[in-house]
Amino acid sequence: MLCLKISSQARWIENAQVDLHKIMVDHAHCEKKAAANGMALINRYPDRDLLVQKMFDLVDEEMEHFRHVYDMIRERGWTSKRDPGDSYAQALHKLIRKNEPERMLDHLLVAALIEARSCERFRILSEHIPDEELARFYASLLASEAGHYRIFCDIAHLYYPEEEVRSRLDELAESEAEIVRNLPNEPMMHG
Amino acid sequence: MLCLKISSQARWIENAQVDLHKIMVDHAHCEKKAAANGMALINRYPDRDLLVQKMFDLVDEEMEHFRHVYDMIRERGWTSKRDPGDSYAQALHKLIRKNEPERMLDHLLVAALIEARSCERFRILSEHIPDEELARFYASLLASEAGHYRIFCDIAHLYYPEEEVRSRLDELAESEAEIVRNLPNEPMMHG
Repeated sequence: MLCLKISSQARWIENAQVDLHKIMVDHAHCEKKAAANGMALINRYPDRDLLVQKMFDLVDEEMEHFRHVYDMIRERGWTSKRDPGDSYAQALHKLIRKNEPERMLDHLLVAALIEARSCERFRILSEHIPDEELARFYASLLASEAGHYRIFCDIAHLYYPEEEVRSRLDELAESEAEIVRNLPNEPMMHG
Repeated sequence: MLCLKISSQARWIENAQVDLHKIMVDHAHCEKKAAANGMALINRYPDRDLLVQKMFDLVDEEMEHFRHVYDMIRERGWTSKRDPGDSYAQALHKLIRKNEPERMLDHLLVAALIEARSCERFRILSEHIPDEELARFYASLLASEAGHYRIFCDIAHLYYPEEEVRSRLDELAESEAEIVRNLPNEPMMHG
């Protein structure tokens, strides 16, 4: 799917189904962090007009999803919990090179990969969870996450040569696959 | 105005008019930080439903203002700069007590005071700056900031006894006045 080198292990969805509450609370935190990441890009690259405009749109959309997930958690009588962190995303962020112009390229491509993996996992959730409203919700998020993946890639192509984007995305996708191979398959969005 | 104990010094608007570019860039950062503050409150108090719903609305509105200010900066051919920080807001945040339930009350009232001061300064800008489009923009933000001040106070009243809110707001407003008395009157929103 998209640029991903491997699929999630079957064991992940088995564990996810056992604790949908935990998955949804973690999902809410992921949407919040995606919004915060969009704001961080605006903050870091305020003179890159196209990037900034796309990030304003993205932050709006992530906040709308965050609110939707939050409401569904509360409707089910579940409680939200503090963010335990996302070791998958943290491992990817460590791959971002420290100096410009490589830093911005890596930041965009890491964000693209996280969106792609979320997209894959939303598809799996939409096909396997028995709560029909939730299944429909995850199906509806698929297109949006795939769109975000494309937005990050498009921005990268606007500011960097095509070959550089392609080869760095390929490298980072290899690393992402390695990170996913070693995940504990916990009931977390990126667990 | 609202709960403020003193007005801004006349010297502030004299300096602000000299460097409207700097004021607007700083204003953009203020809107971004107001959105981030709303997200921080959602994150810290996810089980306080009314607070969370009000903060989702507030983040939307602050991001809309942030985008509007950003667009006006770019239309004028100005550049945005990295956030130099806001020593006024930092001084207020230091007054937030560390333990609950006092911490949440102080966080809400400090946010209310920052909105009240922004409201006062938007009024001054709307009355003094010669750029008509900008003057109208600042006039239009007045009602919104006053509304945010009231939202933070209303949330505080929902979760805390009236007398406790009133007396703590009075104390914090005294401290805010002292902070404002010592400001360097630089061309910053809270300078």
